[in-house]
Amino acid sequence: SNMDTSFHTDRPLVAGVYVPTVCFFDEETEDVDTATIARHAVRLAKAGVTGLATQGSNGEAVHLTHSERQLVTATTRKALNDAGFPHMPIIVGCGSQSTRETIQLCCEAWEAGGDYALVLPPSYYASLFAPSMATVMEFFNAVADASPIPIIIYNFPGAVNGMDLSSDVIVKLSQHPNIVGVKLTCGNTGKLNRVAAATRNKRNDASKPDFLVLAGSADFSIQSLVAGGHGILAGLANIAPKACIKTIELYNQGKHAEAQAMQEIVSQGDWTAIQGGVVGVKSGMQGWSGYGGYARSPLPKPTAEQAKKWKDGFRDLILLEKSL
Amino acid sequence: SNMDTSFHTDRPLVAGVYVPTVCFFDEETEDVDTATIARHAVRLAKAGVTGLATQGSNGEAVHLTHSERQLVTATTRKALNDAGFPHMPIIVGCGSQSTRETIQLCCEAWEAGGDYALVLPPSYYASLFAPSMATVMEFFNAVADASPIPIIIYNFPGAVNGMDLSSDVIVKLSQHPNIVGVKLTCGNTGKLNRVAAATRNKRNDASKPDFLVLAGSADFSIQSLVAGGHGILAGLANIAPKACIKTIELYNQGKHAEAQAMQEIVSQGDWTAIQGGVVGVKSGMQGWSGYGGYARSPLPKPTAEQAKKWKDGFRDLILLEKSL
Amino acid sequence: SNMDTSFHTDRPLVAGVYVPTVCFFDEETEDVDTATIARHAVRLAKAGVTGLATQGSNGEAVHLTHSERQLVTATTRKALNDAGFPHMPIIVGCGSQSTRETIQLCCEAWEAGGDYALVLPPSYYASLFAPSMATVMEFFNAVADASPIPIIIYNFPGAVNGMDLSSDVIVKLSQHPNIVGVKLTCGNTGKLNRVAAATRNKRNDASKPDFLVLAGSADFSIQSLVAGGHGILAGLANIAPKACIKTIELYNQGKHAEAQAMQEIVSQGDWTAIQGGVVGVKSGMQGWSGYGGYARSPLPKPTAEQAKKWKDGFRDLILLEKSL
Amino acid sequence: SNMDTSFHTDRPLVAGVYVPTVCFFDEETEDVDTATIARHAVRLAKAGVTGLATQGSNGEAVHLTHSERQLVTATTRKALNDAGFPHMPIIVGCGSQSTRETIQLCCEAWEAGGDYALVLPPSYYASLFAPSMATVMEFFNAVADASPIPIIIYNFPGAVNGMDLSSDVIVKLSQHPNIVGVKLTCGNTGKLNRVAAATRNKRNDASKPDFLVLAGSADFSIQSLVAGGHGILAGLANIAPKACIKTIELYNQGKHAEAQAMQEIVSQGDWTAIQGGVVGVKSGMQGWSGYGGYARSPLPKPTAEQAKKWKDGFRDLILLEKSL
Repeated sequence: SNMDTSFHTDRPLVAGVYVPTVCFFDEETEDVDTATIARHAVRLAKAGVTGLATQGSNGEAVHLTHSERQLVTATTRKALNDAGFPHMPIIVGCGSQSTRETIQLCCEAWEAGGDYALVLPPSYYASLFAPSMATVMEFFNAVADASPIPIIIYNFPGAVNGMDLSSDVIVKLSQHPNIVGVKLTCGNTGKLNRVAAATRNKRNDASKPDFLVLAGSADFSIQSLVAGGHGILAGLANIAPKACIKTIELYNQGKHAEAQAMQEIVSQGDWTAIQGGVVGVKSGMQGWSGYGGYARSPLPKPTAEQAKKWKDGFRDLILLEKSL
Repeated sequence: SNMDTSFHTDRPLVAGVYVPTVCFFDEETEDVDTATIARHAVRLAKAGVTGLATQGSNGEAVHLTHSERQLVTATTRKALNDAGFPHMPIIVGCGSQSTRETIQLCCEAWEAGGDYALVLPPSYYASLFAPSMATVMEFFNAVADASPIPIIIYNFPGAVNGMDLSSDVIVKLSQHPNIVGVKLTCGNTGKLNRVAAATRNKRNDASKPDFLVLAGSADFSIQSLVAGGHGILAGLANIAPKACIKTIELYNQGKHAEAQAMQEIVSQGDWTAIQGGVVGVKSGMQGWSGYGGYARSPLPKPTAEQAKKWKDGFRDLILLEKSL
Repeated sequence: SNMDTSFHTDRPLVAGVYVPTVCFFDEETEDVDTATIARHAVRLAKAGVTGLATQGSNGEAVHLTHSERQLVTATTRKALNDAGFPHMPIIVGCGSQSTRETIQLCCEAWEAGGDYALVLPPSYYASLFAPSMATVMEFFNAVADASPIPIIIYNFPGAVNGMDLSSDVIVKLSQHPNIVGVKLTCGNTGKLNRVAAATRNKRNDASKPDFLVLAGSADFSIQSLVAGGHGILAGLANIAPKACIKTIELYNQGKHAEAQAMQEIVSQGDWTAIQGGVVGVKSGMQGWSGYGGYARSPLPKPTAEQAKKWKDGFRDLILLEKSL
Repeated sequence: SNMDTSFHTDRPLVAGVYVPTVCFFDEETEDVDTATIARHAVRLAKAGVTGLATQGSNGEAVHLTHSERQLVTATTRKALNDAGFPHMPIIVGCGSQSTRETIQLCCEAWEAGGDYALVLPPSYYASLFAPSMATVMEFFNAVADASPIPIIIYNFPGAVNGMDLSSDVIVKLSQHPNIVGVKLTCGNTGKLNRVAAATRNKRNDASKPDFLVLAGSADFSIQSLVAGGHGILAGLANIAPKACIKTIELYNQGKHAEAQAMQEIVSQGDWTAIQGGVVGVKSGMQGWSGYGGYARSPLPKPTAEQAKKWKDGFRDLILLEKSL
């Protein structure tokens, strides 16, 4: 059974670099390419990242069926276990429009070996929420009540028609024992600062981590650390995991000038990842690492010119990565 | 087999009133309530509507699993057939983010007895489209190539992060033989006029209807007719099918003053449907017809005060409906 | 004195075609070109339009100083008077962020010979309104109390950060004796229908017109008429005043088929005006009528290719115009 | 003459805390209250701020006439000179829709004693820009060519219909010798990091400052410092100048833990300033310092309950401020 102890061992959330892994597909059929998924997961683990996240925006969650989502997560879990990383946590993107399906996704994530669920607020019917944040609070609390795995709130206004959760809402939700962190892709480090301050040492439970506050892009890594954040969950780490890790390590070691110098290279590389999204990140991986392929249709395949642009945009970062 | 001739008989799209049926759920379990779905479909058919649409925004498409979607459509088909309406077409909402899943939904809709697929453009990764409308065109053409049933384009910017298809894009897409209509929920009757003008008598095929141009809300019914539109696909018809039909009939009979007088009552009632969305429409149905129930969580259940407000908002329209 | 009786004679608002005149500038200095302003106003008056509006969006209100605004309005008034159109009303765009400056603009418009003030809601600090529509209502009522000329509400969400006045708000504002109409550039003919129905025969004063409801674009002219509207206030009439007038006349004469045929040409031409805005309208005027020039910087001057595109976009409409 | 040497002395931009001063009005007449403007400027100067900015969003630029703007700036300049702060620079908000008026505002700012112009991009006709950023670049370069005082770019998407200048655009504009800094109110510290990295040591002119990169809110003060920024231009400093200054000083002295502790109080206080905007900031000043008054109409006057909420929101910050 995949329900045995070794499968569902405790993998606490700690500070560090988490990677929302891109998903891989056969170029002809667009079927899920499990071999490359496994290979990429192990490569990231060996680079030293703290955890992986399947089915984030870079993982094309919205392009996958329920069973494909489980396949990707289970493949990732098995690959990590087989390669000697049984303790590395996997976060699974589980947001959907209904409370019911979101809970179902959390259960399926757990069955497939996921440790945490990353949950976007529902937004399709946002104009009918009454009032807006009361419905959102109710949604998150209901999901957290029912989910077999803890919840990480995903605040990404660009993905949910502009809905932006305030520090007040996030802090209130952090009181639920099964809501254990937040990923802030909004880039608002003032909000991050308020959330980190209000949730620090909240749980008074030495056996569990505090509320984990993660930056959603690598271009504000040390900016989030100085504001009390614990790390990043950022697509750029698919391309340059070591550079992302080292930037944060240097900062945490008090080597601020060196951290700042490295952050600047990371931020410049991230500008390409932000502009190109999963299309650009995959193109960059293909260009520099020889694998990556394309996103599922209708996402476009880059032209030769675009592929060159994405590759060039990551050049300095890749040079740094290879030196580490 | 449900694939026999009588099941997949030809049900041409003609001008008229189409109803995006609300979906019904058990109040306790939130499971699909097939009995009420069947009852409501038959009530609408007997009122004289031209066709039904399952899994529109009012049908809570985004709250249903693939198999629930098929259950709703098949229940509707069977109810119509059993009640003597075997020729009434069913349109099925099939939009999703990937080309692949959209085609799958079209196939599943066809298997369940659907006749046409109503398709929203993908929008989650819209910033990565390159350029935006080229990717959208490619998406619709690929779906239309592969779908076993014809496609109706669904233009509803509010549901897809503001993406608004222009008349140019819609007219170009209308050239695909398997793209047969558009629902304009944007409310732009100038665009509707351009689309209707450019697609009229386009197919030169007496055995098939022209490109069907439908208004997405009842509050611009006769405004769309005067602009060359063919009717409506509008949530308000769940509440007042006869009033919607009669308004259009009066206009088409040249009784413009009477049509205008009735349109004003329809438009005022629709203001409640627009503000309340599926929550308000269901609440109004419960208040005036004794069934309706609630939308799936996290959509809120109206308070007593809100329920009264929604009921009152439909009063004049219901009085008109009962007089017809 | 310009305050004499003949200057401030009564010019009631009646149904018809109103033109938000473009403003003209010297190509070198970008100074206001009064000769062309006068010439264009007279050309439109001779074509038979009902009224003119200075300092709308097409009139580049936001590019003009207070004194330039007065110069444009006074030039237009004098040109109309001198050419034998002393009874043609002039509407003047007077929206601004503060109640105080809006009232000042209304006074200055009156001094310059304006008859009505077209007023956008303030939006810069919209997030601080409390609640939003209460502040907007208070703004319009305060302006209407103080303005020496009556107010026409200008609903144009695209110009005010998305703020969209509902039919409820507009209907409430219509109760103020000095608020006498609305221009709906939102294109929402359902809203237009509700407003027209609720404000019809409201004033019970045979000496004054009812609340005037105008469409903000020519591409929904007859759609707004069938919904109870009274006409248009539309930039396209700078290019093709007679076609705009004739479309409405045919409809009002009950020649619906002919009106619809003409509306389709108007709607297609308007697509160019909507896409090109004041830049495209001026370019089209230059191409077809030999005057127009450019908008003030930073608005771009069209390239030769763009100028050809705008000219071509108006071709069918211009052919219609010349035939009338 | 106010054009003498001592009036237009050189006041270089240096790193630090700049305050976009609120404007003050007579409660009855809403006329500009010069006495309070002078008093507040001197209070801030004595608290140790680096510079002041008149006619930012908090200064109600959009509510002031050209001559009132000059009055406010000249009053501020004179108050600073008279109180012994002749070297403190004044930045003046000069954004407007046309190139022409923006240059005029820069000239008038200079005449009134302003040292730098803070310029928003034009946005009213943004859909007509061609392409968008080419027009924006042209605008800033034309203004910088003609302005008698150097330009600081103001990136505040919320004030200009969502227009967000990228790091690429800002870096390109920084090459103009008369564009000397940027205020980032977008809160994007990744962008800030890229801009700071690309513009550092750019000018190679020891007599002039580098390109000044300022955070637009106090809640990301140290986050912007660690990213290479030089300080803040933030409304909260109207309420708590010393706390803003001390947070930055502690950070610059390497006392990071103390800076972080203070930043958290600042960020919490800033949450009130962000939510309340100029209405809340003035209300808080009135509550804690006995002056402030109200914003010009139509901005609402807080109810007693709201005034209490704004006052309470600043409590911890005020306690910190008074301890410094």
